[in-house]
Amino acid sequence: MSRQLLRLFVACALCLQAVLFAAAAPAAAQRPRRVDLVVSGGTVVTMDAHRRVIEDGAVAVEGGRIVAVGTRGEIAGRFAARAVIDARGAAVIPGLINGHTHVPMSLFRGLADDLDLNEWLTKYIFPAEAKNVTEEFVRAGTQLGLAEMIRGGTTTYCDMYYFEDAIAEETERAGVRGLLGETVIDFPVPDNKTWPDAMRYTERFVARWKGNKLITAAIAPHAPYTVSEAHLREVRAFSDRTGAPVVTHVAETRKEVADITRDHGASPVEYLARIGFLSPRDVFAHTVHLTENEINLLKQNGVGSVHNPQSNMKLASGVAPVPQLLRAGVAVGLGTDGAASNNDLDMWEEMDTAAKLHKLSSGDPKVITAEEALALATIGGARALHMDADIGSLEEGKRADIVVVGLDALHQTPRYNIYSHLVYATKASDVRTVVIEGRVVMRERRLLTLDEALIKQKARAIRERVSRSLAGK
Amino acid sequence: MSRQLLRLFVACALCLQAVLFAAAAPAAAQRPRRVDLVVSGGTVVTMDAHRRVIEDGAVAVEGGRIVAVGTRGEIAGRFAARAVIDARGAAVIPGLINGHTHVPMSLFRGLADDLDLNEWLTKYIFPAEAKNVTEEFVRAGTQLGLAEMIRGGTTTYCDMYYFEDAIAEETERAGVRGLLGETVIDFPVPDNKTWPDAMRYTERFVARWKGNKLITAAIAPHAPYTVSEAHLREVRAFSDRTGAPVVTHVAETRKEVADITRDHGASPVEYLARIGFLSPRDVFAHTVHLTENEINLLKQNGVGSVHNPQSNMKLASGVAPVPQLLRAGVAVGLGTDGAASNNDLDMWEEMDTAAKLHKLSSGDPKVITAEEALALATIGGARALHMDADIGSLEEGKRADIVVVGLDALHQTPRYNIYSHLVYATKASDVRTVVIEGRVVMRERRLLTLDEALIKQKARAIRERVSRSLAGK
Repeated sequence: MSRQLLRLFVACALCLQAVLFAAAAPAAAQRPRRVDLVVSGGTVVTMDAHRRVIEDGAVAVEGGRIVAVGTRGEIAGRFAARAVIDARGAAVIPGLINGHTHVPMSLFRGLADDLDLNEWLTKYIFPAEAKNVTEEFVRAGTQLGLAEMIRGGTTTYCDMYYFEDAIAEETERAGVRGLLGETVIDFPVPDNKTWPDAMRYTERFVARWKGNKLITAAIAPHAPYTVSEAHLREVRAFSDRTGAPVVTHVAETRKEVADITRDHGASPVEYLARIGFLSPRDVFAHTVHLTENEINLLKQNGVGSVHNPQSNMKLASGVAPVPQLLRAGVAVGLGTDGAASNNDLDMWEEMDTAAKLHKLSSGDPKVITAEEALALATIGGARALHMDADIGSLEEGKRADIVVVGLDALHQTPRYNIYSHLVYATKASDVRTVVIEGRVVMRERRLLTLDEALIKQKARAIRERVSRSLAGK
Repeated sequence: MSRQLLRLFVACALCLQAVLFAAAAPAAAQRPRRVDLVVSGGTVVTMDAHRRVIEDGAVAVEGGRIVAVGTRGEIAGRFAARAVIDARGAAVIPGLINGHTHVPMSLFRGLADDLDLNEWLTKYIFPAEAKNVTEEFVRAGTQLGLAEMIRGGTTTYCDMYYFEDAIAEETERAGVRGLLGETVIDFPVPDNKTWPDAMRYTERFVARWKGNKLITAAIAPHAPYTVSEAHLREVRAFSDRTGAPVVTHVAETRKEVADITRDHGASPVEYLARIGFLSPRDVFAHTVHLTENEINLLKQNGVGSVHNPQSNMKLASGVAPVPQLLRAGVAVGLGTDGAASNNDLDMWEEMDTAAKLHKLSSGDPKVITAEEALALATIGGARALHMDADIGSLEEGKRADIVVVGLDALHQTPRYNIYSHLVYATKASDVRTVVIEGRVVMRERRLLTLDEALIKQKARAIRERVSRSLAGK
């Protein structure tokens, strides 16, 4: 069954259920419906279209989906839960969406810093990757990144790397949601030595995960300056045929804009528009250097944009025109980029930085409010990844990706406004419990699907190998 | 005894001790010297002039001062410790120095955000202060801020607020080091209704704390645009007579520069130079908008500068010319500003942001390296506060302000470079144990000098009052 059909079916089923529920209301009051899970109590920050914030709220979950959001009293009256997460005194928010990562690169965290992008890539990252990136490396790095992301309340991430099929396996096993793009590029890389090999790999990869609840397999041409026009057209045709999303880096640096302009007589998004690359299945990371016309092209073609403020600062890339993108109606999400460039996968710092950076950059301290920053990391990210029918807010019918966040640490005391509190004061360490697709993957800071000690041990062993490989070159 | 004499005495005593130790070396090998405390094992990041990093190092402490820094083996051979802090696997760093705070304002954390400085101050902060700030409020807010700072590894802070004498009492009781400035300003404020009252208060305040090991009492004229020229001259004379440091806000916003230029025919630092205000006891917070001449004036006059990147971003004030200040030889520290504007007292985020912001702002990703960012928060801050003879690095003879930082959280795995690791990956929540003046104030994340539950309870009660006071206006 296609995703569209499946969504329609679920929507119908939910309508039908609502009708039946309404008809049976008096009886239902006595016989509450059995559900898998209720997250009960706390301040429910829905991020829905009305931006409802429900004090002493609750969320009911059945079959991996949210079946109701309301006050604790309402939900208690309507549902009998097989399991309850007590969220009293905490915030209950939609799972955070990390819109741009290279998850196995967490194993290169801090390998090389304070360098320009070109030097960093060519002297450190590319040699380190050439000498170390195997499927085993990718699995270990993915586990490390997943564990860090879960601990920080990230429930969905959008990735680009090599051996992405292994990343998908690890992600599904950890119970995390991923839009995972196999990287294709015009030179030999660790998993595929030729373009045809990479396209065959991607074909199998996309076919394998079709219909999976957690994994959406995608194709990820590295960037318009590392993939030829012919290959970009091939990627577009592949996506049209398979329905696979396309994830790529666009307009990250001034150099890229200059090079593309020199080679193609147009700025990056205009060039991509001209070759028919733009589509509503595209996710463009960075989009730092854009003209007004390019912003309009993204909007007209339904392309999602993912903002990476900390990475763009650290590599001195520039400031993406996020307020302008939002005003134009482009779907904008938020990402950390790989931990090798940021150097963490912490969406809380990214939200805080996004809000502050655009105030500074625009000279207007009212730009990107705390509420807007939280939106970038939730519903905005869902829209940018074209997944907003399923995730990004706490609403009936959406997948049950729910995060319980403590609100009473010293650095969060006192509390006046929930959005300000979450964006400007809350840290990843305040996240307590994480539910993805209705499954508890972290409970009171204990990871349930990953072995933290083993992950660290493997990471340290690989770190030794990486250091030796670079020392020995 | 004056500070200078005291320092001389301590230096002589240490020389003498070294001579005696050398003479008695063979005997000493058998009879190790008794000391109060050894912090043993771990990566000791000294931040001394040679930027020594000692793997498996140790720090010996006696009478509140560091008596030796070396390898674990060396220190174990020379000293017998009454108490040992096991820092194996952790980093041992100089206590962080938060160079600019308004500590009781932690009670206004998140009261009002996403506003311009003027609206924020006049519509929210000033009314909230007028209606709520009493000595009781200041004590509760200070305790809250101190607890947050200790938990994040801050051992010294430079403050400006009202009832600063009460802040000093709370700070001493908590065992934290403070350069504490009583705010004087040309309008009635919560503690003093007239300028003469404020000056009398400050006179008593400075006299009272003279010679205190932890507290340095200072005078803090709010800013050159809120204190008249005559009063600024009076502050200068007061500082010259008493030796009290002078803490103030300078060149924070474009509006300030325009106003000062309009009223005095010179930019802020030039104006202050002209009226003889600049001295090597001055600490200027913000210094965002400076000409090259003003940077030279700061250097020539030995004025310290404190950079507040997150506050300057959030209020859209601008980017301080930190690389230029450092190149000119100005002592630059790092601060959070008050938690009402930032919204926390987290020096780890401030270091991370400082490094990233200046890369972006200058377009050069090599500017403000991780090592330099850590320096801003330690030895740089000590210099900016004119306290570098006593604090800012782990060196024999300096006061024993030592922080043990865990290095093995998931978000810190793996580790390649200690500076990158501390600045780009480590969080406040990784701080484990904090020693100030040789006294353990937090052990394995448990506060020993403050009652966290009581602090939170008081903060919540005050929050209710603050909200009511603003609602009722």
